Amino acid sequence: MLPTPVMERIRDEFMDYRGLGASLIEISHRSKEFDQIIDRADELFKRLVKLPSNYKVLYMHGGARMQFSSIPMNLLPLKPARKAIYAKTGEFAKIALQEAERYGQIETIVSSEDTGFDRIPYVDPAKVDQNASYFHITGNNTIYGTRWHQFPQTGNVPLVCDMTSEILSRVVDYSKFGVIYAGMQKNIGPSGMAMVIIREDLLGHAMESIPTLLDFAVMAKDHSLTNTTNTFAIYVAALVFEWLEGQGGVEAIEKVNNEKARLLYEALDNSPFYKPYVHREHRSIMNVTFNLPNETLNDKFVKESGKEGLYALKGHRSVGGIRASIYNAMPLAGVQKLIDFMKEFERKNG
Amino acid sequence: MLPTPVMERIRDEFMDYRGLGASLIEISHRSKEFDQIIDRADELFKRLVKLPSNYKVLYMHGGARMQFSSIPMNLLPLKPARKAIYAKTGEFAKIALQEAERYGQIETIVSSEDTGFDRIPYVDPAKVDQNASYFHITGNNTIYGTRWHQFPQTGNVPLVCDMTSEILSRVVDYSKFGVIYAGMQKNIGPSGMAMVIIREDLLGHAMESIPTLLDFAVMAKDHSLTNTTNTFAIYVAALVFEWLEGQGGVEAIEKVNNEKARLLYEALDNSPFYKPYVHREHRSIMNVTFNLPNETLNDKFVKESGKEGLYALKGHRSVGGIRASIYNAMPLAGVQKLIDFMKEFERKNG
Repeated sequence: MLPTPVMERIRDEFMDYRGLGASLIEISHRSKEFDQIIDRADELFKRLVKLPSNYKVLYMHGGARMQFSSIPMNLLPLKPARKAIYAKTGEFAKIALQEAERYGQIETIVSSEDTGFDRIPYVDPAKVDQNASYFHITGNNTIYGTRWHQFPQTGNVPLVCDMTSEILSRVVDYSKFGVIYAGMQKNIGPSGMAMVIIREDLLGHAMESIPTLLDFAVMAKDHSLTNTTNTFAIYVAALVFEWLEGQGGVEAIEKVNNEKARLLYEALDNSPFYKPYVHREHRSIMNVTFNLPNETLNDKFVKESGKEGLYALKGHRSVGGIRASIYNAMPLAGVQKLIDFMKEFERKNG
Repeated sequence: MLPTPVMERIRDEFMDYRGLGASLIEISHRSKEFDQIIDRADELFKRLVKLPSNYKVLYMHGGARMQFSSIPMNLLPLKPARKAIYAKTGEFAKIALQEAERYGQIETIVSSEDTGFDRIPYVDPAKVDQNASYFHITGNNTIYGTRWHQFPQTGNVPLVCDMTSEILSRVVDYSKFGVIYAGMQKNIGPSGMAMVIIREDLLGHAMESIPTLLDFAVMAKDHSLTNTTNTFAIYVAALVFEWLEGQGGVEAIEKVNNEKARLLYEALDNSPFYKPYVHREHRSIMNVTFNLPNETLNDKFVKESGKEGLYALKGHRSVGGIRASIYNAMPLAGVQKLIDFMKEFERKNG
């Protein structure tokens, strides 16, 4: 979901990008018009997250999933042990971990798999092996609806975080991270690309066998334009960043997000009919997961909500149930509409 | 450049994709709506190129440049020698070759570098080492304006061709190739993604260290949806394929392309003022390169043509001069307009 004013702007200037007589998707990634777009995206993003000056912002091909390979290929050689630590907190965390295992020694320091990923496990700082090249977490687990409210203490081991489904939704101190990366399709823009924000001293340690376009140092040197980039995605990202700044920035949207989540969880907690999936202290503010009393009612809920224009409420195939994704672009009114529907559905079926 | 009717369609259904109440760029790559789009793209593409049934069509992340890594990582292990043969016919051919050298033994069988890449060198079939895993060529050299009018005879060595700047512009017998790949931004759609068309027996031989999303076998198994794809690019591609079919298909557009190129080269050959860059028998029908009597006039030509709405005529920074790109979406009238401008410019400055 993208903010409506952003969508309208894309449509309105689609045939003629700001008087150029050509569409944005027709202009070259080497043109001065596109340089302005990517510079503007950078400037806005850095301001939105108050990025320290020793970090680079990269636009990488292939979404977060491609970074599951790029992260180990870029970072494992940082230390002689070529070891990394992963927290297993959901499906994507697992896929990231499995991909990393192809490139080095991976320690799964904590896991919540045995309780169906319904919580975020505690990481004992004393147990973090300081010989590891990095420590990887998934900030918000889209499928299960958990998030790290407190990030783990990793000592001198760089913390790497997949923030795909929560980037720009909450205030985060970037200086505490070595790398933050995110597929752009949740809170930023269209699909197929990832942002990677990396501390400069972590650049330049990649494995010899790394494909050139996966090498963060190469992409940093070339301002992400080593080859033809996904110009459309970066253009939309800049518009979304602009919109977010207009909303008051990350601080302001976090307040709205917290309120949206509070209302929805309150509705769940106050009902004997709906059962929230996640332990109270690990709940996501982006993805709210719950179940109805049985599968038949879950299915009926998805079908009837769809008819009301409440789309995509079906839980991920690996977990079932209901998942309400309330990303930045979802207004408070959208959540209110969902809550009204839930109350009505409970009245009829409860 | 994209065909105007395609652009208008994208704009018109941008806010509400076919009555769904959401934009195409908001729908999930796992939705039935997107399944229909990618199936339709496949069906149209296969019909347009008369693809034999033992080939797979893949939509890969990162453009043609990412495939410069994927090709050797997928194909070098096909034979024990882990050797590949490359023809060096331009800048992109060189970059492809250099990337491949990182993964195995690469033989540069022919090169036209010493004559400034102004021709396509002859490949003696007797000299093609049959122990090589594949033979790589760049079908059309965008920067220099050359193309392989006849493809080389490689015996049992699979021929791999980067067709980025000529895919769907000419009738090609796909059964003669092991792999054809193309960045989508020239004749297909927006930037950031590549199509890979691969013979099925070449799947499943990848190096162990290959990033999962670069593995053609994985992507083939998952119908290119191993992860969130660039949905917008595939959507636009399907519309372009539909448009092309409406134009009469590849046979018909090739006739138009030949005529566009014929008119333009004729104007160059009939003038003492303009000097075409490429030997007559190796000329591209997509990129027409030429020079004016001196650099000052080259610059003046680029500037003044820009004012007339004839954009992007500046030659690539590595070769200079003038380059007219006349891809599928450029109508005959556009070429005629350019020729008129050229005649007028010669009258004033010749």
